Amino acid sequence: MSPAFNPLDSRLAIISGEGDLPSKVLKSASLLGFQGIVINLTDTDGQIKNLSEWKTFKFKIGNIGRIFKKLHLEKITHIVLCGNIDRPKLYDMKFDIKGLDIMSKIAFKGDDGALKILSKEIENEGFNIIAPSTFLRNSNFPKGHIAGPKPNDNLLNEIERGYEVLKNLSASDVGQSVVVQHGIVLAIEAIEGTDEMIKRAGKLKSSGTGPILIKTPKLNQDLRFDQPVIGINTVKLAHRHGFSSISCKYDGVLVIDLNKVIDTANHRNITLFGF
Amino acid sequence: MSPAFNPLDSRLAIISGEGDLPSKVLKSASLLGFQGIVINLTDTDGQIKNLSEWKTFKFKIGNIGRIFKKLHLEKITHIVLCGNIDRPKLYDMKFDIKGLDIMSKIAFKGDDGALKILSKEIENEGFNIIAPSTFLRNSNFPKGHIAGPKPNDNLLNEIERGYEVLKNLSASDVGQSVVVQHGIVLAIEAIEGTDEMIKRAGKLKSSGTGPILIKTPKLNQDLRFDQPVIGINTVKLAHRHGFSSISCKYDGVLVIDLNKVIDTANHRNITLFGF
Repeated sequence: MSPAFNPLDSRLAIISGEGDLPSKVLKSASLLGFQGIVINLTDTDGQIKNLSEWKTFKFKIGNIGRIFKKLHLEKITHIVLCGNIDRPKLYDMKFDIKGLDIMSKIAFKGDDGALKILSKEIENEGFNIIAPSTFLRNSNFPKGHIAGPKPNDNLLNEIERGYEVLKNLSASDVGQSVVVQHGIVLAIEAIEGTDEMIKRAGKLKSSGTGPILIKTPKLNQDLRFDQPVIGINTVKLAHRHGFSSISCKYDGVLVIDLNKVIDTANHRNITLFGF
Repeated sequence: MSPAFNPLDSRLAIISGEGDLPSKVLKSASLLGFQGIVINLTDTDGQIKNLSEWKTFKFKIGNIGRIFKKLHLEKITHIVLCGNIDRPKLYDMKFDIKGLDIMSKIAFKGDDGALKILSKEIENEGFNIIAPSTFLRNSNFPKGHIAGPKPNDNLLNEIERGYEVLKNLSASDVGQSVVVQHGIVLAIEAIEGTDEMIKRAGKLKSSGTGPILIKTPKLNQDLRFDQPVIGINTVKLAHRHGFSSISCKYDGVLVIDLNKVIDTANHRNITLFGF
């Protein structure tokens, strides 16, 4: 927990995408004594609406002005952004005036560039942004070998190859993961998402030791938004597609349910390694 | 035509993958007075076997020692490598001794690193390597606007974004093309090939002006092997997936049938632009 804020003085808004993360954050925030609301940006009614007494409001992501109005009305002081947001088809969205204003600043920025502008706008409105990891205990990918078969030199070579690609890409503010096998970069992630990339690499792999997923935040990435995440579904999917390892930057990648992730990897002979 | 060799003194081997390029090269080499053989590395019997009097020999790509022996036996002096070779599933291949020797040097190199080692081995055997473009007139992607709707500032911004990504990636010796739309990098090519990437980006695109394919050789890439290529099929595929433009590094990307490519792009309202 960050000591920088006190739940009793805070009113939290959980701005929620898809996946398990938002409900974990809500549960934990609630236990920690926070009060607040949920802004549901997904197309569904939100899996988290019945988990607590927190009111849920559904918004389209383009209605940034209306979301800000609601946050002010609810006297929100702190904001956490969490869950996958299927990269919004930006040019398919209807923006309100505030949204258009922000979008005009975001055009032709990379992922991080866009998120930095958005965060500045949120802070300009008087809200503080908190990282989802603040609410999850034991949620950082650990260092070294943590599950599955012991890593060998070959794994370390593969990681070095993949990490170099990601570092070079990160200068262009794109890409959070790659798949490497036998020194060959099978797949590079752009906006399709890690799951789609795992499936693709599964079709491109050769025999021998299975491919490895290498995941890291971009250099200088603000981990309060869009921090790379893995969970048990990542491990299961990688296993199903013949991978041998998931290797993440330690303290850089968020793990949902670390203990379950470790169990799942041990059961499926997937090496988890924090580099 | 390179003035460095004389067809009458040369015996050419066309080492042939898939696609239209090998038969174009064979036709042109034959017209220019070359004699030689074809080494067919594809799984098919080769589309080019009946095009000329040149003998065709079929080999597995792993049998590098046996290929070298054949080239010596046929008194080959010059070699041209052309056509797509579906990235061989290296670890699925059976290598002869020479092949294993070369593979041990190639392990954990990027694409270009591997090709440089292979070319050195070929040259050590006494053969000269010639670029496929030597045999194709008018085959370099031209500079500026050459087909389809006139480019606007937006296109130039998209190209800048994509080219920056490719330059950064090229330091890792991977990636020859990307797809960009509205400043967002929709897809980055690793080993899946350009066609697969175009199809993927087609599913990820948003509305408004269609995505553009940006293609360039890697920095310092030896254009005698693995030079990026486009042809009418690339244009048709891009059109089918809603693209607005194909933009290539001029003099860096090989075009098969430039005039037909320009016609095809004009008919389908695809901008072709050499940056």
